[in-house]
Amino acid sequence: MTAVGDEGAGGQRGDISVTRIAELAGVTASTVSKVIHGRSGVSDGTRQRVERIIRENGYQRQEKVDAVPIVEVVFQALDSLWALEIIRGVEQVVRPHGLAVTLTEMRGEHTPESLWARQMLARRPVGVIAVSADLSEAQHAQLASRSIPLVALDPTGEPLHPIPSVGATNWAGGLAAARHLLELGHQRIAMINGPGEFLCCRARVDGYRAALDAAGVPLDPELLRAGPFYFETGRDQARELLRLPDPPTAIFAANDLQAFGVYDAARTAGVRVPDDLSVIGFDDLAFTQWSEPPLTTVRQPLLEMGAKAAGFVLDLAAGRQPEADRVELPTKLVVRRSTAPPRVR
Amino acid sequence: MTAVGDEGAGGQRGDISVTRIAELAGVTASTVSKVIHGRSGVSDGTRQRVERIIRENGYQRQEKVDAVPIVEVVFQALDSLWALEIIRGVEQVVRPHGLAVTLTEMRGEHTPESLWARQMLARRPVGVIAVSADLSEAQHAQLASRSIPLVALDPTGEPLHPIPSVGATNWAGGLAAARHLLELGHQRIAMINGPGEFLCCRARVDGYRAALDAAGVPLDPELLRAGPFYFETGRDQARELLRLPDPPTAIFAANDLQAFGVYDAARTAGVRVPDDLSVIGFDDLAFTQWSEPPLTTVRQPLLEMGAKAAGFVLDLAAGRQPEADRVELPTKLVVRRSTAPPRVR
Repeated sequence: MTAVGDEGAGGQRGDISVTRIAELAGVTASTVSKVIHGRSGVSDGTRQRVERIIRENGYQRQEKVDAVPIVEVVFQALDSLWALEIIRGVEQVVRPHGLAVTLTEMRGEHTPESLWARQMLARRPVGVIAVSADLSEAQHAQLASRSIPLVALDPTGEPLHPIPSVGATNWAGGLAAARHLLELGHQRIAMINGPGEFLCCRARVDGYRAALDAAGVPLDPELLRAGPFYFETGRDQARELLRLPDPPTAIFAANDLQAFGVYDAARTAGVRVPDDLSVIGFDDLAFTQWSEPPLTTVRQPLLEMGAKAAGFVLDLAAGRQPEADRVELPTKLVVRRSTAPPRVR
Repeated sequence: MTAVGDEGAGGQRGDISVTRIAELAGVTASTVSKVIHGRSGVSDGTRQRVERIIRENGYQRQEKVDAVPIVEVVFQALDSLWALEIIRGVEQVVRPHGLAVTLTEMRGEHTPESLWARQMLARRPVGVIAVSADLSEAQHAQLASRSIPLVALDPTGEPLHPIPSVGATNWAGGLAAARHLLELGHQRIAMINGPGEFLCCRARVDGYRAALDAAGVPLDPELLRAGPFYFETGRDQARELLRLPDPPTAIFAANDLQAFGVYDAARTAGVRVPDDLSVIGFDDLAFTQWSEPPLTTVRQPLLEMGAKAAGFVLDLAAGRQPEADRVELPTKLVVRRSTAPPRVR
């Protein structure tokens, strides 16, 4: 096991030694070592005090001789094929380096709880990828002081710290979806967006708006809806949309699950897709090609996004700077059979 | 880091000490320690020699003070929502114990390569769950000598070693599917099975056969097909089945993806589901309820299976015996709208 001597004997690491941290915190060097490595046997109060001293004094662990050959991926939720594609992308890149993928799930929270951070330190991963998850300032500091690289994939909001991040060209995807519908002749184009706190959702709706603007089609605010990335959101919002006095002739959903919810609402209402209603999704998960009708959707290169984020982690772990602070991989409109010209009414 | 002294100083562990293994192998104790912990810097030949001596002399590492708080899940393939459900089940159980889930994928191989075993030893997991993956005899020995518990989930074949395993009542599921179709009045009932080397597939087809036998319906061998668990298998086999002079009025597919392939073949052939053809799947993945028509299928409790396997690992890691060597969680027929009485011809 990593002994106290690992830092203690070496004396100075970064700007302050373990011995000095121990003095400032009024604890033993062994206790400081436990905190650094996320081990148990330290009270919450002491742990917080030591973490604060580490943060304020710029302690920096340089060597990671004892890193465990894993890359940790933190998900907000592990509930869709979406997550699996990202995992596969990460796995394909880290595997040739002898690394395995470790997963943690935040049960839909945006920021992992403090327990996660302590347990993650005990796992000593080579690096961390946060998927749709924003780490707190304290968690950023914990990772930085242990020299554990952190990369964001689809951050929910503007990251607090400038860490490398990977996403898709969501704005261009929203634009392409709306433009496709406009070109088919639609004017009443609704959008069901995902949660507003996700940057990717902001980008998708902005792209959709830009396409309408460019075509001189005014946006009816009643046609703009939002909700969680679930089937039920698409179904419930589409039900309301289809009951409007002047219902939309097309609906752009911010993910494929929502689009299937739109299908369901349409079937219930006796509205045929695409004859009476065009539907577009986002993501291009495997089953969209098997639905009836097969779904027109905006493909997100999820596997490639996972692979890119993993590449960034490997770069940082090797002391190399990634190619860019922010990379957006291209989205692509995939036209199947759920979109068609509007019926003349 | 774990030093040589960890085993060397302690002398006797199990039946043979590290020092004695080193003598027998003609290497240093440090080299033996590297092999035990899956570290690099040892030639393949030396590693194999040391592993053989460990195996033949019953070396047993007792203490696992340096286990990393992860449970490793080895998948044959990480390519379906099926895998994600299992991962979620494992995660839910290990998380309250401060453990995270680590994944490795075998690219469709039945037995992990030797590199996997070495890298897994370097990760020092608390335990391993092998999903549809059969470890080799040498790999079993490697895990056993390091006191790392191993549990199988849906083993492909009869495990070489008696390790605890978790599955579903596949035989009962196959029986329920065929019985449902018989009760609707079908007699020409085809089955598209998964790969024959999977025990779960053997059980499903045996259950299907038992239902036909019990009903006195002879099985036409031409109606029994098999292939990988993919959409394409269902599509291609169903195409052939629908072209038979006396085609089936119902098809039971061994998983949901194959069932969607059957849907596709039916659409292409102008055959309506369920009016002209009843279809049943297996698994009950989330999107089956959103297909048109929603799929009748046999639900496998995948999340619960992952949770049960994780519970077994925790039991073994704590020195407790699991409740049973083999547990099969119940499958359940979920009737939706893809099955109906056959048309009178």
